[in-house]
Amino acid sequence: MKRGFGSDNHSGISPEILKAIADANVDHALAYGDDEYCQRTEALFRKHFGEKARVYFVFNGTGANVLAIDSMCRSHHAVVCSDTAHIWVDECGAPQRVVGCKLLPVHTTDGKLTPELVKTQLHGFGFEHHSQPRAIYISQSTELGTLYTLDEIKSLADLAHSYNMYLHMDGARIANAAVALKCTFKEMTTDLGVDVVSFGGTKNGLLMGESCVILNPELDVDMKYRRKQMTQLCSKMRFVAAQFECYLNTELWKRNAMHSNKMAQLLYDKVKEIDGVKVMYPVQVNSVFVQLPRQVWTSLQNDYFFYDWDEDADVVRWMCSFDTTESDIDNFVCALKKYLTIT
Amino acid sequence: MKRGFGSDNHSGISPEILKAIADANVDHALAYGDDEYCQRTEALFRKHFGEKARVYFVFNGTGANVLAIDSMCRSHHAVVCSDTAHIWVDECGAPQRVVGCKLLPVHTTDGKLTPELVKTQLHGFGFEHHSQPRAIYISQSTELGTLYTLDEIKSLADLAHSYNMYLHMDGARIANAAVALKCTFKEMTTDLGVDVVSFGGTKNGLLMGESCVILNPELDVDMKYRRKQMTQLCSKMRFVAAQFECYLNTELWKRNAMHSNKMAQLLYDKVKEIDGVKVMYPVQVNSVFVQLPRQVWTSLQNDYFFYDWDEDADVVRWMCSFDTTESDIDNFVCALKKYLTIT
Amino acid sequence: MKRGFGSDNHSGISPEILKAIADANVDHALAYGDDEYCQRTEALFRKHFGEKARVYFVFNGTGANVLAIDSMCRSHHAVVCSDTAHIWVDECGAPQRVVGCKLLPVHTTDGKLTPELVKTQLHGFGFEHHSQPRAIYISQSTELGTLYTLDEIKSLADLAHSYNMYLHMDGARIANAAVALKCTFKEMTTDLGVDVVSFGGTKNGLLMGESCVILNPELDVDMKYRRKQMTQLCSKMRFVAAQFECYLNTELWKRNAMHSNKMAQLLYDKVKEIDGVKVMYPVQVNSVFVQLPRQVWTSLQNDYFFYDWDEDADVVRWMCSFDTTESDIDNFVCALKKYLTIT
Amino acid sequence: MKRGFGSDNHSGISPEILKAIADANVDHALAYGDDEYCQRTEALFRKHFGEKARVYFVFNGTGANVLAIDSMCRSHHAVVCSDTAHIWVDECGAPQRVVGCKLLPVHTTDGKLTPELVKTQLHGFGFEHHSQPRAIYISQSTELGTLYTLDEIKSLADLAHSYNMYLHMDGARIANAAVALKCTFKEMTTDLGVDVVSFGGTKNGLLMGESCVILNPELDVDMKYRRKQMTQLCSKMRFVAAQFECYLNTELWKRNAMHSNKMAQLLYDKVKEIDGVKVMYPVQVNSVFVQLPRQVWTSLQNDYFFYDWDEDADVVRWMCSFDTTESDIDNFVCALKKYLTIT
Repeated sequence: MKRGFGSDNHSGISPEILKAIADANVDHALAYGDDEYCQRTEALFRKHFGEKARVYFVFNGTGANVLAIDSMCRSHHAVVCSDTAHIWVDECGAPQRVVGCKLLPVHTTDGKLTPELVKTQLHGFGFEHHSQPRAIYISQSTELGTLYTLDEIKSLADLAHSYNMYLHMDGARIANAAVALKCTFKEMTTDLGVDVVSFGGTKNGLLMGESCVILNPELDVDMKYRRKQMTQLCSKMRFVAAQFECYLNTELWKRNAMHSNKMAQLLYDKVKEIDGVKVMYPVQVNSVFVQLPRQVWTSLQNDYFFYDWDEDADVVRWMCSFDTTESDIDNFVCALKKYLTIT
Repeated sequence: MKRGFGSDNHSGISPEILKAIADANVDHALAYGDDEYCQRTEALFRKHFGEKARVYFVFNGTGANVLAIDSMCRSHHAVVCSDTAHIWVDECGAPQRVVGCKLLPVHTTDGKLTPELVKTQLHGFGFEHHSQPRAIYISQSTELGTLYTLDEIKSLADLAHSYNMYLHMDGARIANAAVALKCTFKEMTTDLGVDVVSFGGTKNGLLMGESCVILNPELDVDMKYRRKQMTQLCSKMRFVAAQFECYLNTELWKRNAMHSNKMAQLLYDKVKEIDGVKVMYPVQVNSVFVQLPRQVWTSLQNDYFFYDWDEDADVVRWMCSFDTTESDIDNFVCALKKYLTIT
Repeated sequence: MKRGFGSDNHSGISPEILKAIADANVDHALAYGDDEYCQRTEALFRKHFGEKARVYFVFNGTGANVLAIDSMCRSHHAVVCSDTAHIWVDECGAPQRVVGCKLLPVHTTDGKLTPELVKTQLHGFGFEHHSQPRAIYISQSTELGTLYTLDEIKSLADLAHSYNMYLHMDGARIANAAVALKCTFKEMTTDLGVDVVSFGGTKNGLLMGESCVILNPELDVDMKYRRKQMTQLCSKMRFVAAQFECYLNTELWKRNAMHSNKMAQLLYDKVKEIDGVKVMYPVQVNSVFVQLPRQVWTSLQNDYFFYDWDEDADVVRWMCSFDTTESDIDNFVCALKKYLTIT
Repeated sequence: MKRGFGSDNHSGISPEILKAIADANVDHALAYGDDEYCQRTEALFRKHFGEKARVYFVFNGTGANVLAIDSMCRSHHAVVCSDTAHIWVDECGAPQRVVGCKLLPVHTTDGKLTPELVKTQLHGFGFEHHSQPRAIYISQSTELGTLYTLDEIKSLADLAHSYNMYLHMDGARIANAAVALKCTFKEMTTDLGVDVVSFGGTKNGLLMGESCVILNPELDVDMKYRRKQMTQLCSKMRFVAAQFECYLNTELWKRNAMHSNKMAQLLYDKVKEIDGVKVMYPVQVNSVFVQLPRQVWTSLQNDYFFYDWDEDADVVRWMCSFDTTESDIDNFVCALKKYLTIT
C-alpha cells in the first residue's frame, strides 16, 4: 500500500518491539498472564503510574475501554462523554452490548469536555427511570488531536468524585499527550485523580497490545473474570508483556511519540499559511485536521491514503506516525500544493 | 520457566511465523482487515475450506467461539455441548454474557457427543418457556484428546440439520485432528456439513491468531459488526493474516501438528506399560491423560509443569507441543520412573 | 392522595375495565396466552390494525418498547429517536441492557422527529465501527403532548423503508392521538407503513396491560421466546386480554381518550390568557406544559400533585386523565390564580 | 375451558383479592410505588420477614427470580441449582440474557439440592476461566412438589455463607410450603439465613403480583434501578400492593394454600392404592405426580386439563388450586377409574 497519513495504526511494528517479541520467544512460559514477563511488566506499570496501579493487558482499545467501563459501571449506570468520543462514535455499541450501560454524549467543539458541559448531564440522581451518571470519559489526546491541560483533567476528576463518580481516561494516544505536555504518565493521571486509564501502545509502535490500568483500588474488583468473560484474555500473554516492557523500559514510548508529534508539527508549519487550507484545531499531538476544497482532497487521496473526517464540511484528517519521515511530509505538501494550483 | 507439558500455548512462536510477521512489517497497511495480507489469506482459507468459506480473524479462541455462536444463535437459543466442552467449562460464561444464550451440557465419557446424547436435549421446540436448541458444539480434537471420525461428524451435522440446527466445530486443535485423520480441513468440515469452525492457530505455533470460519453462507450475516461490537476487531490485522498465510501456505500447520502428535505418541508408548500409570483415553492427538499416584504427580510437577485434570481422580494431563523434543520426553519419563520407584 | 395532574397513570381503573376483569374471573383458563380471551382479543387487534397484525401482550410500556426494539434490532443496530423520547430519557437504559443496542438521540424542539432530523443520523452504513441505524422511534402522541400528522408519519415510514429501516411508534397514549386526529388506529399506523406499535392501555384506564403489535410480518419472528426471555410473559394472561377486549370492543378507548383530551383543552382555555402563564407547546392531546413563576408552581404543588418538567426553565406538566373532572379543572385554575395574585 | 388440574395459575382471582383491587380503585395514587398502599404493604412484608426485609414488587415469577439473581450476581458468577429448577428449565434463558451469568444444574432425584450435591460444583474459585459460584437456588416447595425441612434449608444457607455465597429461595409456592411445614415465612427464610426470596402470590389467588424480598441487607443495592431496567417496574403499583396487603393481612395466603394442599392430599388418598397408578414423589403440598398407562392419561386429558410431566416415563402432574373442590376431585378420580378399567 502507498504510504500515507491515514492512521497511526497503518504503520507497522517498531523494530525494537519486534526484537522484544523475538527475545521473549524462548522456552516455555505459563499462559494467561502467570509468567515472569507479565510480572516484570506489571511492576513497570506501577513504576509509571504509582504503586497502587494494577494493569490488565488486553488485545485492543475497544477491549480496554469496555473493561474500564465495566470496572466502574453496572448496566443501570451512564457514562458522560463528548459526542466525538471514541466510545460513542467508533465502538459499534460495544459498551452497550457488553456492559449494557448508557452513554450520554455531550456536544463539544474541540473534543474536550468541561465541568460545565458535564454538569448538563448530572441530574436525575436517585430517580429510577434515569440511568445513573457514574463515570466521565475523556480521551487524552482527544479524537480531534487536542489536549486537556493537567488542570483541566484535575477539575474533571474533582467533579466526578464530588458526585461519587469516576474519571476514565482513554489513552489510545496517551504517549503523544504526555510528551506534548512534558509530563509523566503519573503526573497526568494518578496525581490528578484519574480512576482508570485505557493505556494504548498499538498506535505508537506495538504489534498489538493495549491495557486497562486501574488507578483507584476500589475499582480493582473481579477484573480478571471480567476480562476473560468479555473475550479479552490472551493466552501467550508474555508477548504482550514483552512489548510493553520494551516500550516502557527503554523510553521507546517517548521517542516514538515525540517523533510523530514533531512530524505533525512540521506538516502544520508547512500548510498553515497555504491559501485554501484551513487548519481546524490546534495541532497539539500527531494529527492535523484541515478543511480543503473537495476536489483537492479527493485528488490527493489518489496519491496518499488519509480519511475524510467530515465529508459535509470538507474536513480531512492527516495523522502522523512513528514512522512518518520528513520526506513523507515534503512530498505530501508538494502534492497538495500541486492540486491546489490545478484547482 | 522450566519446560514442561502444561499446554500447547506454553510454547512460543514458530520461527517461520515470527519471520512472517517481520516480513509483513514493511510500509503502511490499512487497518481492520482492509489490507492485501488479509485478502490473500482469506483466499487461502477458501482454498482450504471451499469457495463459500468466509473467514473472520479474531484474537483468541474465546472470541472465535463466541462469534461463531453469535452467528448461529440469538439469546433465546441453546447450544448442546459435552459437559467437558471448552465453552461450558473454560470460558467463564462468555457465551452467556456476550450472546445471552443458554448452553445445554451433556455428560460424556470421552468428550464426544453422539446423536443419541444430543437427542436427549432436543425437545421443547416451540415451547416458549424453553430455550430453543439451535446448535451443536463439538471440539475436534476434544478437550480429552479424542477424535471424532468423519462419519461421526457427518452424523452430528445431519442430525443438526434435520432439526434446523447448526453444527459448530471448535478447532482450537484442528490441525492436530486433521493430520491424525489424514484428511484435509475441507474433508473434515465443509464436506460433512459443518456450519462454522473456530479455526485456531495459537496452540500450534502462532503468536496470536484465531479465526471464525463461516462455512454455511446463511450464517454470514452482519459478522463484521458482531466481531467489532464484541471487542474482537484487530487494528493491525495484517499481522494476524500474515501468520495464517505462512501457516497455511507452507504446510507449517501440518508439520507442527504432526510433530506434537508424534511426541504425544512417543510419550504414550513409553508410559503405557509402566506399572502405576493408567492412560485414560485413546491418545489420538497431542495429549496424554493419565492416572497416577498423587505423590508421584505432585513430585513430578516440581520438575516439569503440567496440570492436574481431575484432582479427585488423580488424573493429570500431559500436553505436547510443536517444540516438544524427544529428549524432553526421555527426561520426563525418566523422572516419572524415578518418582514411581520412590513411591 | 390528593387528586392532581401528575400523570394519567395516577388514575385508577376505569369501572368498565374492572368489571371486565371480574367477568373473566370464572372457571379455569390456560395460562400464558393460550386461552379464549386472548384469542378473541387478538382477533380484535387484527380488526383494529389489519389482518396481518400480531399482538403480544406485555406488562408495561417499557416491556412493549423493548420487545418492539428487539423485533427490529440486533445489538449492533441503532435506533434514531428524539432527545425527549421515552426510550432515551425514561427507561433507565432498558434497551441498552436487554437488547444491547444503541440509541441515537436527536435534538427536537417539540418532541417530533422530521425526515431532515433523522437524516443527520443516517450515515456510516456498512462501516463496522458504527452502530448501524436500523429503526426510527416516534411517540404518538409525543412526550410533549404534540402530534404527528398522518403525512408526517408516512414520510418517516417512507424514509425508514428507503434505508431498509423500520418505523416504531410508541403508543403509550395512542388513543389520545387517534381521537385527536379523528382517525382509526389502522389509518394512523398500518396504512402509513408503521412497522411495529407499542399499544398502551394503562394510561387510559386499564389496570395494567400493554402490548407490542407487529404490523410488518417480517418482524414477527420468534417473538414469543423474546417476550418470555425478557421477563414479560404473563401467566394469567386472560386478565390482560379481557381488559383490552373491553377497551377495544366497547369504544371505551375512545370515550376515555376524548374525555382526557377535552379536559386538557378546557384547562388550556382557562389558563392560556392568564398573565404569568406561558403555554409551551400546542395542546393537542391530554397534557398542558406551562412556564410559571417558580413560587407559583411550588405553592400550587402543595394543593395538587403535578411534575416539574424542566426545573431550570420553570416549566411544569399538567396531565389530564379519564377521571379528571371539570370541577378538578375549575378548582385548580382557581388555586393557580390565587397563587399568581399573591406573587 | 373445562376445569382441571393443569396448574395453580389456571385458576382465577380469589374473590377477596378482586375486592381489594376494587377497594383500592379510588382517587389518585402516585405511580411506580410511591403510594401509601405500597408503604403499608412493605411494612407488612417486614412484619412477615423481619425488620430488615425489603420488598420489590414485580410482575411475574421470572421477573422476581431474575431480579433476585441480579442482586447476588454479576455476569461472571454462577448459580447452582437443581436440574429441575424453574430457572434452569422454564425461564427460556432469562437469567443468561438479563444477568449474563451461568447456571450450574445438578441432577437431583426429588428436586432437592443437598450440601453434598452443591459441593460438586464448588470448585474453580479464583480461576478466571471458571464462572465463579456465587449463589444457590432452591425452590420451596420444589417443582416436584417436595419440601425442604427447615434444617435442610439452614444447612444450605450455612454452606453458601461458608463460601461467601448466597442462598436464594424461589417461593412461587412459598405459602403452600409454609402451611405444610406449619411455620411462618420468617421461620422458613430469614431465621435460617436465606438471603433473598422470590415471593409469589399469583399461583395462590392473586390476579398478578410477585415480589423479590431482600433479606440480606448487603444485597439491597441499587435494586430500584435494576428492577426498572429489566422492565419490571409497574406504574399503577398500588394495585399490586393492595393485593398483597389483602393476601398477607387477612391470612388469605394461609387459607388458600391450606385448601390447595388439602385437595392434593385428598386426591392422593383416593388414588394411591389404585392399581396402575404410581405416585412418584411424596405429596407434601398441592401437586401429585403419578405414573399412569399412557392410554389412560391421554383419555383423561379429554375430560380434564393437566400436563404430562415426563412423556417418556408416562408421568403426569396434577396440580390443585385454591379453587379446587372436593367434587372436582371425586369426579376426576371417577373418570380415572373408568379409563383404567377400560384399559
